[in-house]
Amino acid sequence: MKVKRIVVGENLFAKNDEIAEENKVILKKHGIFSINIMGGPGSGKTSILEKTVATLMDMNIACGVIEGDIAGMFDSERISVLNVPVVQINTGGACHLEAMMIKKGIENLPLADIRIMFVENVGNLVCPAEFKLGIDCNITVANITEGEEKPAKYPLMYSISDVVLINKIDLMPTVEFDVDRFNAYLKEIKKDIKIIPVSAKTGKNIEHFVKYIVEHISE
Amino acid sequence: MKVKRIVVGENLFAKNDEIAEENKVILKKHGIFSINIMGGPGSGKTSILEKTVATLMDMNIACGVIEGDIAGMFDSERISVLNVPVVQINTGGACHLEAMMIKKGIENLPLADIRIMFVENVGNLVCPAEFKLGIDCNITVANITEGEEKPAKYPLMYSISDVVLINKIDLMPTVEFDVDRFNAYLKEIKKDIKIIPVSAKTGKNIEHFVKYIVEHISE
Repeated sequence: MKVKRIVVGENLFAKNDEIAEENKVILKKHGIFSINIMGGPGSGKTSILEKTVATLMDMNIACGVIEGDIAGMFDSERISVLNVPVVQINTGGACHLEAMMIKKGIENLPLADIRIMFVENVGNLVCPAEFKLGIDCNITVANITEGEEKPAKYPLMYSISDVVLINKIDLMPTVEFDVDRFNAYLKEIKKDIKIIPVSAKTGKNIEHFVKYIVEHISE
Repeated sequence: MKVKRIVVGENLFAKNDEIAEENKVILKKHGIFSINIMGGPGSGKTSILEKTVATLMDMNIACGVIEGDIAGMFDSERISVLNVPVVQINTGGACHLEAMMIKKGIENLPLADIRIMFVENVGNLVCPAEFKLGIDCNITVANITEGEEKPAKYPLMYSISDVVLINKIDLMPTVEFDVDRFNAYLKEIKKDIKIIPVSAKTGKNIEHFVKYIVEHISE
């Protein structure tokens, strides 16, 4: 008799990719541009989201947000103050978001009313990069307190990203950080990646990130 | 016929726990106290290790180090300068160390010559907490640029830790960080956890961490 082979990992990824594709179709149907924000714990993902969403709202561009965390409502509570629809997903231990979680999130957002959907992934520079979500654009938030060699130490995350935001540049006078060295490591992983240094605290250069987003809405 | 049930996840964990137990036995046999250092990317694990190992060497306490990274030799090169035996484990994508990797590491260390074995885990506040390694003491490195609510957002990591080092206190004048709020979140997760605020950069309070280690060698 022929042996039946089940490769658990591959099977799981195939199912995930299928749902990711469904998410993509739904979002496209509603003309929504979607952005997946990833990065280590405390890199400043939520703070960047706050400033970015506020700026887009001022431009009358409606946003929706899916917040991914293992536990707690900290981030969704911060974002909901901005008066945008937010769905909090608690993974209950899982170290990343999967396409099925995004599907649930999408079902709970008023899709007809929004132009841009942000996803804030679980704070983790490794695992979120392994799961397709069906999102248009991947962002990694680095920050200058992490050190310059992170792109070389977490290559997958940086290789799947379209944009890297180097956050906390307001700490430049105090924290030693060699931007050229960081950029060199990054370009080794991905040549054509867009790099925007920002400060979520002061708002510096957030307008460059917003410009990037706005240019992509109509695509 | 009775159905045979294979629960893949549980099976993997059981095998891991078995090897972790073997690691524990080997280390105990050699009278080695072992420490597993965990924390997010760029929290300062390697810098703390550098200062701690240097101090222990000055006290004539021999150390060995296992460095865990997805890719690269950055951390092991930094530690090897101190003239201690170091083994670099590259997980090749995996987001955490497992007991089998530690076993391989142990086999490559001169066990008869060392009193303390440090393990630096992959930079990740989630997954490393899920895998037993057979190590005596778990340390989580937090840092003040991450924000105060991290223990509530990454509860498993903090709940399995014996000591939390709050790093980068040299940035206190510049970075807003409410130590009491951090401690309150932490104590909700684990009441009896030991908290040591440190600066790997200036070396401040590293002696308190060293004191903790030295007190536990003879146990």
